[in-house]
Amino acid sequence: MLEQVNLKQKLAKEDYQAVMPALKARLAALDAPLRAANLPVILIFEGWSAAGKGQMIGQLIKNLDPRWFTVVNTQPPTELEQRYPYLCRHWHTIPEAGKFSIMDRSWYQEVSVRAIADKLPAHTVETRLADIRRFEKTLTDNGYLILKFFLHISKREMKARLETLAENPETAFRVVKSDRKQVKHYDDYYAAFDRMLAETTTAETPWTLVSGTDRRAATVQVFRTVIDAISERLNRPTPPQTITLPNEDTADAALCLSDIDLSQTLTREEYKKCLKAETARLAKNQNLLYTRRIPMIVGFEGWDAAGKGGCIKRLSSPLDARGYAALPIASPTPEEKKRHFLWRFYERLPKSGHIAIFDRTWYGRVLVERIEGFCSEADWRRAYGEINVFEAYLQQSGALLVKFWIHISKEEQLKRFRARERTPEKQWKITAEDWRNREKWPRYETAVNDMFRYTSTENAPWHVLAGNDKYFARIQALRIVNETIEARLKEKG
Amino acid sequence: MLEQVNLKQKLAKEDYQAVMPALKARLAALDAPLRAANLPVILIFEGWSAAGKGQMIGQLIKNLDPRWFTVVNTQPPTELEQRYPYLCRHWHTIPEAGKFSIMDRSWYQEVSVRAIADKLPAHTVETRLADIRRFEKTLTDNGYLILKFFLHISKREMKARLETLAENPETAFRVVKSDRKQVKHYDDYYAAFDRMLAETTTAETPWTLVSGTDRRAATVQVFRTVIDAISERLNRPTPPQTITLPNEDTADAALCLSDIDLSQTLTREEYKKCLKAETARLAKNQNLLYTRRIPMIVGFEGWDAAGKGGCIKRLSSPLDARGYAALPIASPTPEEKKRHFLWRFYERLPKSGHIAIFDRTWYGRVLVERIEGFCSEADWRRAYGEINVFEAYLQQSGALLVKFWIHISKEEQLKRFRARERTPEKQWKITAEDWRNREKWPRYETAVNDMFRYTSTENAPWHVLAGNDKYFARIQALRIVNETIEARLKEKG
Repeated sequence: MLEQVNLKQKLAKEDYQAVMPALKARLAALDAPLRAANLPVILIFEGWSAAGKGQMIGQLIKNLDPRWFTVVNTQPPTELEQRYPYLCRHWHTIPEAGKFSIMDRSWYQEVSVRAIADKLPAHTVETRLADIRRFEKTLTDNGYLILKFFLHISKREMKARLETLAENPETAFRVVKSDRKQVKHYDDYYAAFDRMLAETTTAETPWTLVSGTDRRAATVQVFRTVIDAISERLNRPTPPQTITLPNEDTADAALCLSDIDLSQTLTREEYKKCLKAETARLAKNQNLLYTRRIPMIVGFEGWDAAGKGGCIKRLSSPLDARGYAALPIASPTPEEKKRHFLWRFYERLPKSGHIAIFDRTWYGRVLVERIEGFCSEADWRRAYGEINVFEAYLQQSGALLVKFWIHISKEEQLKRFRARERTPEKQWKITAEDWRNREKWPRYETAVNDMFRYTSTENAPWHVLAGNDKYFARIQALRIVNETIEARLKEKG
Repeated sequence: MLEQVNLKQKLAKEDYQAVMPALKARLAALDAPLRAANLPVILIFEGWSAAGKGQMIGQLIKNLDPRWFTVVNTQPPTELEQRYPYLCRHWHTIPEAGKFSIMDRSWYQEVSVRAIADKLPAHTVETRLADIRRFEKTLTDNGYLILKFFLHISKREMKARLETLAENPETAFRVVKSDRKQVKHYDDYYAAFDRMLAETTTAETPWTLVSGTDRRAATVQVFRTVIDAISERLNRPTPPQTITLPNEDTADAALCLSDIDLSQTLTREEYKKCLKAETARLAKNQNLLYTRRIPMIVGFEGWDAAGKGGCIKRLSSPLDARGYAALPIASPTPEEKKRHFLWRFYERLPKSGHIAIFDRTWYGRVLVERIEGFCSEADWRRAYGEINVFEAYLQQSGALLVKFWIHISKEEQLKRFRARERTPEKQWKITAEDWRNREKWPRYETAVNDMFRYTSTENAPWHVLAGNDKYFARIQALRIVNETIEARLKEKG
């Protein structure tokens, strides 16, 4: 793709001065409608060292209100960042609705500069390119506008610029080892950049290739592209999306709440014995996860009063407090509401060797948000596929994932609600909302069965715990977690 | 202090089993009233390696609802963390009102284990001990409950425990180099711990020294202390605080808004010439700050429509976008409101070599929060001293700090408000709130003069910009920033 760039393109000073004031005014004037439309915008600047990324960003932001943008300066990942799936730190940077994130380098470093530095095998780069396409697609599907610029210069031009910088004592510090490496191995980088550009050009998120040789021409091109793209988006009604529901072919075999045998029980003696054995087993397994640096995610969903808290308590009791976190998921904060619904979960992922236990999960999108109308029908229907992609990405990154639905009968729930009302120290656990949710039982039942059908995949199946007997459910949960860990430990060396 | 600990203390198993169920129940029962009282609690666990900190925390949290606590596992600072004032990463961990932060090691590492690892000179440790006393005082003054535990064991006991851990292949990974170092240099660590304990024992935040030899005895002691302290705090009305206002002695010489000469102006030609010179100077200065790794904080306060935005725009126009951030400060988010008022500013400090430009600042506490009654009178009166401590800490950490008040006359404000109403693209800048604030002009005038009086210190003076002429104010701001940078660059090699 880079061969298409006309590196000789120039713009005379007079022409530049003739057009820029109007472009600056148009850009500044977009601020208010952009906020009114609550449009989140991501501007990505990639390109060669010394191609002028920083200067271009400096030009742009002079015309933007500092309250509405953030400049993200992407550095090589820190040691801590390397303990999370690599897209985690990039998810972190996505803007709130109505704001700009301006990326001075981005996730594209992971398939270009980082791929070369870390000597990644070709198939890993391929996987990452697919990850990035999916990442950007879920953003644009959720209303983000992504504009991607690549600033291209020739090897000779880069070399000359780096020399000029190095000769000036005030700017010499800007030339670092990795810049010199780009000059030396220009062809390798060229190939990597070219592949990256070709494989991540989609209809929704095309690259704009910019010749960095002439700064005036480059500036005018970037300003025009940004202004046109935002204006077009503000004027165009979003077209209806075609949503494909996953797993349609296996629908017949899908899990169904009515199939669950709720009569299963354990006696108190059996429970105590099993609890002792399973917790000891889990303590040992946690140590092994830690030494092998495997992260684990356990998600609990279930009816109100199904016993999620009790399960989590037994699960966490043998765990070293330094290596796990129990994460209660309430309704999203305003900051979270203004971003993609998965953002807050990316913010809470466990680092390598750690365990995260979610008390309610990202499935809120297809349960409470669906039923209460907190998102549109298109949103929750699309979410099944988005969640499958999210979970597959976590697993591909090496994480273990277990998801539980704790099932109880409607009668059992009533009994527990009444018991809570009678017990003074448990009264806070029962609210008017619980009673309201109970009235929506049939609608939740449909939503839960849909969730099983569309998101129970081979690698990330739903485990339904028969929860009418708390003992039985707790031991089941512990066993499944232990078995999942042991299967993985056996699998690889 | 450590010599007071009876390392031979023991508790028989029967006695332990007799008291623990009641203690666990009492602890669990505190959850609800603690939340109702919106009390934020910090539990600090410090002590020798293998003294049982992790196990103790594990015991405690089993009896707490995971929605209301976070375990903070303090590690040595990362490279990135080292680019911020050292207390920054610890401020980050303070809990929201109604929640627990449980610290497995804490800021006390900075004056003990880190001080030894980094070979800090004695006077630096002394400064840090004072920083920590002030840090904890501002937390307790703002309603935080801090409980500090030190788990003590003998050299022989530590050695034996580490050997046991190391011999078991499942736990061997827990023994790291720094643990062995503690055994080897036990006396040095003992001296550092002892000094730290002695110098940070205050009436509000005493240390509880715990013998770690016998786990049962230790557990009972910790549970009792936590339960008693929280119960006492929930029952005791907070005593009225004595607040000393700073700078009372220099009150006569204090800055006063009415003294400002608002007639100062620049012609358009003078302005253009000065702007060119000062921005070029600033671009150069930014490079030098960057290479010298000096962080800089510039804060803007001023009347509505005083021209803060315009000043910030001119100040940032020559800056490399990768090295500065313009930070608009709006009303705090719910997450921010639930913490100490300085928390959100610690979250936004610049790293070394970077510049942070605040559009409104921490002075909101003594301006809008005072006038609108968003905090109590005791809160805003105490804030003057707290802010001085905050700013002195930033400067002691190496940061440059410049604070501006942009002053305009009441008539000038009226003119600007009317002009905004007439200009379509500026209408969003003027709201009913601006008009309401305008009615409170005399009250703000008093608050501003008080702010000057109590927080204009020798090292962090207020600069008042005569803003009736925008050109004049902008050039003044640029000059003062440039002069501040150059004074520092001259100062140290």
